[in-house]
Formats: sequence, C-alpha cells, structure tokens
Amino acid sequence: MSLQSLVDEVAAAVAPLRGQGRVADYIPALARVDPRQVGIAIADLDGATAVAGDADLAFSIQSVSKVFTLALALEAVGEDLWQRVGREPSGSAFNSIVQLEGDKGIPRNPLINAGALVVSDVLVAKHGRDAALATILSLLRTTSGDDGIAVDAEVAASEAETGFRNASLVNFMRAFGNVRSPVEEVLDLYFHHCAIAVTCRQLARAGLFLAAGGLDPIGGQRIVSAQRARRLAALMLTCGHYDASGDVAFRIGLPAKSGVGGGILAIVPGKAAVAVWSPGLSPEGNSLVGTKALELLVQRTGWSIFG
Amino acid sequence: MSLQSLVDEVAAAVAPLRGQGRVADYIPALARVDPRQVGIAIADLDGATAVAGDADLAFSIQSVSKVFTLALALEAVGEDLWQRVGREPSGSAFNSIVQLEGDKGIPRNPLINAGALVVSDVLVAKHGRDAALATILSLLRTTSGDDGIAVDAEVAASEAETGFRNASLVNFMRAFGNVRSPVEEVLDLYFHHCAIAVTCRQLARAGLFLAAGGLDPIGGQRIVSAQRARRLAALMLTCGHYDASGDVAFRIGLPAKSGVGGGILAIVPGKAAVAVWSPGLSPEGNSLVGTKALELLVQRTGWSIFG
Amino acid sequence: MSLQSLVDEVAAAVAPLRGQGRVADYIPALARVDPRQVGIAIADLDGATAVAGDADLAFSIQSVSKVFTLALALEAVGEDLWQRVGREPSGSAFNSIVQLEGDKGIPRNPLINAGALVVSDVLVAKHGRDAALATILSLLRTTSGDDGIAVDAEVAASEAETGFRNASLVNFMRAFGNVRSPVEEVLDLYFHHCAIAVTCRQLARAGLFLAAGGLDPIGGQRIVSAQRARRLAALMLTCGHYDASGDVAFRIGLPAKSGVGGGILAIVPGKAAVAVWSPGLSPEGNSLVGTKALELLVQRTGWSIFG
Amino acid sequence: MSLQSLVDEVAAAVAPLRGQGRVADYIPALARVDPRQVGIAIADLDGATAVAGDADLAFSIQSVSKVFTLALALEAVGEDLWQRVGREPSGSAFNSIVQLEGDKGIPRNPLINAGALVVSDVLVAKHGRDAALATILSLLRTTSGDDGIAVDAEVAASEAETGFRNASLVNFMRAFGNVRSPVEEVLDLYFHHCAIAVTCRQLARAGLFLAAGGLDPIGGQRIVSAQRARRLAALMLTCGHYDASGDVAFRIGLPAKSGVGGGILAIVPGKAAVAVWSPGLSPEGNSLVGTKALELLVQRTGWSIFG
Repeated sequence: MSLQSLVDEVAAAVAPLRGQGRVADYIPALARVDPRQVGIAIADLDGATAVAGDADLAFSIQSVSKVFTLALALEAVGEDLWQRVGREPSGSAFNSIVQLEGDKGIPRNPLINAGALVVSDVLVAKHGRDAALATILSLLRTTSGDDGIAVDAEVAASEAETGFRNASLVNFMRAFGNVRSPVEEVLDLYFHHCAIAVTCRQLARAGLFLAAGGLDPIGGQRIVSAQRARRLAALMLTCGHYDASGDVAFRIGLPAKSGVGGGILAIVPGKAAVAVWSPGLSPEGNSLVGTKALELLVQRTGWSIFG
Repeated sequence: MSLQSLVDEVAAAVAPLRGQGRVADYIPALARVDPRQVGIAIADLDGATAVAGDADLAFSIQSVSKVFTLALALEAVGEDLWQRVGREPSGSAFNSIVQLEGDKGIPRNPLINAGALVVSDVLVAKHGRDAALATILSLLRTTSGDDGIAVDAEVAASEAETGFRNASLVNFMRAFGNVRSPVEEVLDLYFHHCAIAVTCRQLARAGLFLAAGGLDPIGGQRIVSAQRARRLAALMLTCGHYDASGDVAFRIGLPAKSGVGGGILAIVPGKAAVAVWSPGLSPEGNSLVGTKALELLVQRTGWSIFG
Repeated sequence: MSLQSLVDEVAAAVAPLRGQGRVADYIPALARVDPRQVGIAIADLDGATAVAGDADLAFSIQSVSKVFTLALALEAVGEDLWQRVGREPSGSAFNSIVQLEGDKGIPRNPLINAGALVVSDVLVAKHGRDAALATILSLLRTTSGDDGIAVDAEVAASEAETGFRNASLVNFMRAFGNVRSPVEEVLDLYFHHCAIAVTCRQLARAGLFLAAGGLDPIGGQRIVSAQRARRLAALMLTCGHYDASGDVAFRIGLPAKSGVGGGILAIVPGKAAVAVWSPGLSPEGNSLVGTKALELLVQRTGWSIFG
Repeated sequence: MSLQSLVDEVAAAVAPLRGQGRVADYIPALARVDPRQVGIAIADLDGATAVAGDADLAFSIQSVSKVFTLALALEAVGEDLWQRVGREPSGSAFNSIVQLEGDKGIPRNPLINAGALVVSDVLVAKHGRDAALATILSLLRTTSGDDGIAVDAEVAASEAETGFRNASLVNFMRAFGNVRSPVEEVLDLYFHHCAIAVTCRQLARAGLFLAAGGLDPIGGQRIVSAQRARRLAALMLTCGHYDASGDVAFRIGLPAKSGVGGGILAIVPGKAAVAVWSPGLSPEGNSLVGTKALELLVQRTGWSIFG
C-alpha cells in the first residue's frame, strides 16, 4: 500500500469518531479549537511525506515539545541530566506533585510536567531564557525544514496567566535545589515552548531524526547520536503518555509523545515518523481519535516495535 | 560474529563483576546460592542455541514465571483479564500495596506481585490449583523442549513459610473481590510457580515463541497469537523490571522480565530470546550482572527495538 | 439538672434523627440491626447512673473494645509498646494500609485497626489466645460490675469469614516483624474482642475508671495509674474517631472512642463516663446520631475539656 | 507553690538540656539565634504573670501566629471557613503537599502551612494585605497589652527570599481555586505575620483569652465567643504540633501551638496561658527544651486537660 493510501484509509476509518473526547479547556485559546478536526502525516526515511485531513492546520504542540527540549538538554549537559531527573514511568498524572515530595524534588522522568520544567531550567541556565527559546525553535525549524514555525503568543500568555499548577511544581523543586534559575524564567520558557504552533506535516518531519538513528535523513545533519535517538525513543515509549503509557505501548507498540493540544508524535524506528492531531482528549490527557488513528495504522502496517 | 562468540565475549566481559549485588535472602534456599555464578544463553529463530558460563545450572525462576502465567491466563479468559489488572507501570516496588488501596484492589499490571496473584487466581478458578500448576509446567516444558523442568519443593515450602507480604496482597484484593478463589490456593499456586527451577538454556528456549510471533519456531506449535506475543513483549518492556523498567528500556531497549532468583528473560523480536542469570541483585531486585550482560549484548549486536 | 433529666432531654432531642446514617453491612449480623435504635447512659463518679432509650439492649462493641485491650497491653508490656505502635492521628481511614508501607509496619496509633492488631499480638504473646480473651472479658466484667458480658459467637464467626482486610494488615505487619504470634491467633483474638456484646449501661460503667484517674470509683480497684488514664484519654481524643477525630474534638471536646456497631464511649475527666449507641454510621464509620447526642450533651453541660 | 517558684523550678530543671535540638536554619536570621536560650512565662486568669530565663528576649513567633490569624479569619467569615480548610490532624509534615493533591486543594487543618495560607488568603480578601497585617498586629498588641509588638523586617525579607515551598503550596491551592487573592499578596502577609517578634511574657499574655472563654481577663474585651475559644483550643490540641501533635497530647495534655522559632504557646483552660521558648528543634520542628519544660510543668501542676 502506498503511504498516501495508508493515511487516506486511516483518516477515513477514524472520521466517524471525530468530536469524541474532551477538548482541553484550561486556557481559552485551547478551548476554542474545533473538536472535529483530524490530521495525519507520515514522513518516511526516503523523504516521502503523505498527509490526510487537517494535516496542514496549526495546533498547539504542548507537551510534544518536551521530546525536543529533552534532546537539547541532553546535548547541553549530557548524561549528567539524570542526576536531576529520573527515567521511570511515574504511574501518576502529568501534573502530579505527590512523588516529588518523597523523591526530594527529583521528577520521575523528563516527559511529565515536573521533569520538563527541570529540562527548561537546564536550558535557561545554558543559554539564558531568550536564547533557549530561540534554540528550541531553531531545532524544530531545522528538523521540519520549515522556518515558519513560531510561538502562538496568545496561547503563551494564557498559559502564564493560568499556570498555577506548574508554578507550584517549579517552586517545589526550587525548594529542593533542583531548579536553579529564577522561577519566572523557567516557567516563561516552559509556557512558550508549549505554545509553539505546528502542523502534522511539520511535526512528522521534525521527528524523523528519531526514526533515523539521530540523523535528519533529508537535511543530512546529525541532530543527536544514534544511541541518544534510541534512548529518546525508549523514554517516549515508557513515559510519553503519562499514566496511559503502558496502555499505548500495549495497543500501539510505538514510541510516542502526546500533548493536550491533541497532537501525538510517534516514531517507527528505521522507517518513519508519524504525527496525528485531533483535539478531543481521554481522561489521561491524550488525543482519543489520534490514539485510535495510530492503532489502526499499526494494524495495517505491522509497524509495532514488538515484532 | 557467531552466536557462540557473542555469548563468550559477553560472559568474559562481565566476569570481573561476578559477586556484585546482594543475593535475595528472604528465604534460606535462595540465600545459599553462590553469588559468583553467571550464565548466558541465546536461542535464535533458526533453532540455534549458544550458551556460556553457568547456563546449565538450575536457578529459581521466581518472577520470570509471571510472563508464562500471564500468557496462560490470557488464553483462559481473554481480554477480560484487563477488567481485573491494569497495563501500566506502577512506579512502585514489586511488592508495594499502596496503589492497591487507591485503585480499589486492581493491580497496576500483571508483572508485579499483586497482578501476578490475580493471574494466579484466574488460573486456579479455571483449572483448579493442581491442574493449574501442571498447565504452567507443561507450557514451560513444551516451549523449552525439556521435560525435566520441575518445581523445587524446598523453595516452594520456604516461600509459603515466609510469604506474609504476598499473603497481605492476596487478602487485600480478596477484600475488594478481585481475588475469588480461596486465599490459600492462590498463594499456593503462586509460591509453586515462582519456585520452578530452570537453566538459562531452558529459559531462553522457552521464551522463543515471544520473539517469533507467538509460534514456537522449533516445535512448530502456536502458543499465542501474533498480536498477543507483541502485547506480552510490550508489557515486559514497560513493567518487566518493577520500578527500574524505564531504566532497562533506556539502557537495553529490549522487552525483558527479571526475577529475584537472578534470572532475566529478554526478547529480541524477530531474532532471538536471551536468558541471563546471576544471583546478585540491585536495590530494585533485578540481577546486576545479568542486566550488565544484556547491556553489553545489545551494544555488540544493535538489538535494541528502538532502532 | 439531674442526670436523668439530662439523658431524657438528649434522647428526646435526637429522637427525630433516628435511622440516619448507614448501618455497617460488611457482616450479616451487624446489617440486621434495627437502625432506629438509640441508647444513652451516663455513669458519674459518685456511682449514679442514668439511662435513656435503648440503653439496656446489647450491641456489638467493635472498636470501642480497643480502649480496653490497649489498657491491658500497656499493663502487660509497659511503655515498650510504643516501640511498635505510634501515638499520632493517622489522617487516614480506619482500615488503611498505605502508611504501614512507608512506616515499615509500625501503625500510627493503637486505635486504628492495624494498631489494635499489634495490641492483640501483644496480648496473645503475653497470655496465649484463650487467656487473652478471658482477660479482656474479665476487665470489662469487673469495670462494668456485670458478669454477663460475653462474646457474640455469631458476630465473631462472621468477622472471621469476611475479615480479609484485617488479615491483610496482620500479614503485612508480620512481614515486617511487628506481628510475632501466629497470624491466625492474632486475628482470632481481634475478631472475638470486637464481637463482645455490651449495653450502653455496661459500657458507661466500664469506662468510668478513665474519668476517675484510673481507679474504679465504685468497686474501688485500681485499673491503671492516673498517668495512664490521662494518656488513654489523650489517645481517645486524638485518634478515637479515625479520620474524624479532629472534628469530634472540635464539635464535642471529649475523649471518645467509636465502633462500627454504632457505640461510642466518651470520657468526662473528673466527672463521668458516657456511652451512646445508634447503628447508623457516618462515612468515616462513626455513629451519626450518637455523635449528635454527645454534641447536645456537651452543649447542655459545658463538659468540654477545652474550657 | 507560687507561680514564680513554679517557673523557676521548671527553668532550673531544663537548664541542663539547653542547646539540644537543631536550630531552624532555612533562613539566616533564624540560624543565628543562640541555641542555649530558654524562656518561660505563665499568665494566669487573675492577672498574675511569672517569668524565668530569657522570657523578655524577643524571638520569631513563626507558626504560633497561626492561632491568632485563625481567630481573625473565623471572625471575618465565620464557620464558612470550614468549606475551605479541614479540621483533622494531617498525619504529615508541616509543609507537606501530598494530601493537597488527593484533597483537591483543601488543606487538612488551619495550623499546617497550607491551611494557614488559606487563612492568610481570607484575611487579604477581607482587609487587603496591609490592613490585614495591621489587624493581626493589633490583636497581638491588644491581647498582650504591649504596643511594642512588631514585625522583624529582616526575618520577613528572608522568608520571602527562601519561601519556595510555601509558594508551591499557594500556587497549588490557587490552581484549585482555594486561594483567590493574588499569590504574592497571600505569601507576603504570611511571611510577615510569621516574622512578628514576641517575648514569652508577651505571648503568654496574648494567649490568655483562649484559657478564659474568649474574654481577655485583664483588659476585659471579648476577643472571641466562649465556644470559639474552646474550638481553637481543640484545634491546637489535635493539630498544633504537626505530626507530633498526638505525642504532645499524650505527654503534656494541653492545647498548644509550636513555631520553628522555638516558641510554644500552651493553654490551660480556666487557669492560665504558658509560653516557652528555646530555639533547638525536634525533627518534627517543635522546640525540644520547650516541650520538655511543658512536660515538667504539667507533672508539677497536674494541669492536663485529661484529668
């Protein structure tokens, strides 16, 4: 089956489900999104891209950005990062603070909010707040081959106004010395990188290096080492969907990272990167229709990493 | 590199580490084991097997047996099992009871003690206690091609004498109606299947069907469906090493299940099954030298499922 | 106002509330109780007793017995008991197991189930199971001046059949070495002392020594030292109503212990002991009408220990 | 024994213990305090005051101020306060955030940090930040009869610089809507009222209304109703020493509130108020020598509320 037939088929199969789930409503800018939108894009290692549905509409990247900031933080401080963040699934919700108390301010992994805030702190310390954001945008623009990727300023402002839970996490870790830059700068960077707007087409393309041993197969640049690409994928599999990560591994069998904007980036090692988007969320905060689309895709292609 | 050279190399590389870690001492039979023993066996899909070190010495299978009992429980009651056990990493120790209270007696996954006890309850309900144990032994004998596999009666008796923590878990779940057979029978089956003695050679061979789409590539029998084999592997990856599962996925990148006897079974989908054994454990209860051996093996072979 | 007028007034005031709350239904013998029954008894230090309502009907003492077993355990092993049980409110439900894990098998206080099971273990170790039960009955008979107090065998048998949660607690603490006698004997003693049948008249009289500096003011025997009487009262105040203890201290201001049979024993230091009974329970497991009766009693008498 | 002989005796008895415990070191201003200082003051309902040791040296009131802010918040919004704060001992450390997550932003009681921050929010909403602080100071000045009581500006500034844990708590509750004023104002008021400097003499005198049915027995003003005075005392008993409250009730038997400055205010209903101060703290954050002094005082006077 051609890549295009594949995305068309999957898009058609999930069309009846459009509108399922609950759109994130914690900030107005997200709550206004039309819940019936669905986009799919696949970029393969040969440079081919196929898209279907609303794959060229921009949505808020939200937590999918954590894969990219994590890659940058590892480039910045290397494996020392793991002194400050764990690598284990948390078994808890994305914004839970409970484990931080027992673990003395060390988040379980870099893909839950607390861990991504430590990553943000690392990038502020390395680059300063402004240059850190520029570096994140640069990575996404380079890997996607699209210089138009930018922060949605309205979303960023809304995040800042309502981000009390994240402010709580940062202050808590600051009390344990595991956030070192000024609390406001760390939050500001975090709110901005979560507010980047991307399309499925851009996101699939941007994630391709993770399927290609760390080398962008189109532009030809090395983004991270092969080992680091594997390890980022491992973290996506075990921790990429919060307390539904095990279920996604079970049903889909691909490393993937979700965001409350409704986007998901999935990696097919050695083959392709896939981006799906649909705003309606499961109770755990993952795109319902997006997850279903990935499940159907894997059924048709046998792309599970588990055989 | 030949399979034999590979295991020889890995065995040589970990030899200096022999004796590291702490042998499980909660029952006398396990505490007496020589901590310096190390065994490795690889069985590939073509029927070849290579072993090194103490690969033909029997050790206590302990929690590695949970992969096999889970396969049998799924054959017995199908996907209904997931009404009674979750599929998420727990973020907690193997014998933790904390989450069971908030989750009203539903264990997070079938590879921690609580979940494996529900699996044991399912098998007792299906077969009766005696036939259930016979069925488990039969599966291990069939898949390993070795009729000599049996329960170590001394270990089983010791488990029963000291298994208060597991008795606590079973009674707790019984209070919530998530254990239905008599508490004593469920524990008895559990203690016996954990006390099965296996060698690395037997274990690698027994796990081969999980790398081969559910079909035993040597005997030719279908053990489970291809989808179920993938899903068992996914659970091994996300939950197979308790609260070190994320770290094992990160460092090794293979679905694997450990036991406090020091054994680990790892699956290389489409290629091979690997069994390692060394009694010294990490604080999380996983074989230290065994984990290191798998890490070296993956470095030499590039067998990670993450690319 | 005379003592008799007082209990009559309170009984009349709570009469319209009869039947409120939910009768404990975890064992059939308790579930069958008529929820509209209400009894009140006050015994004062001069030897006067006044009763109203169903104060001469027997009910299941349940956790109110924990005050008496605690007194006996302290006589048996002295302040060493506090090596094995804490003295802090738990902030959790009566049968919660969560804190036991973090606290390595040491219950927060002797008036929650886990703590009372350690007390039971102490008494089994000291006296043997049968003599321990005889000692508990003897204390209740002596202090109440009524030799008719006995175990309700049907309730005891039902407790044993359904007591999986308590069995879980005992096994958990056994795993940590904080239960030392055989699990079955500890549970058996616990189920029997909780199944003792008492009337309000008997219970008020039996608790009088706690209001009288440890000396039974009628029989004249010293039951415990004055300091121990104060300390038992302190524990009743801080821990006697599980995770509603703070609210009872706030609203009523008397040391008191409740049981899921619907009974409550309250102590007025230097003045009197009060027993109330009504089967309907609050969500926390305390008698709703009984608590209300105590609140009205304190409003009429100003008997709060807080001024 | 005269009041003066009593405080002299107690001061002499604890003198050998001076310097025990660990001075709070989270802010420089507290860490610099001489750990060997000990002060005691008793104010009785007849207007007599007796002091010993360093009873006229000022120390940081810290959490003892929570009793006074709670009294003011109850005057401001009445029993509606209990919609936003519980009345139960927490079973956790003074600054724990764990329960807040399960309890959706409702603190267990108003004497732990989270609860006192809600109280602070109530006062900011009622009076505005500046007038709220003036009201707190006014209450302390009126009840102590000493207009010199003031905020230690250096301590307040240090609290603000290092108060990340409290900032985490406020932001967390703000996310649940249980803090409503601007986060900065709530924290600012909290840091300032904790930084009030008092002497033992002032504090004992200021707490006297709680021992006297809510009426200041010297000035003659009604501060709170008799019922509210009793209830404040009940909260001090069950929650006044964080996760050592049960132990203090057990050993001392008086309603009391501690602060990390080393001060403790204890109430003897109908008789007196006692203030002790010594900077060295127990692991739970309560003055070690101060607690011992109260224990000796109660042994000599029989002032326990438990008989």
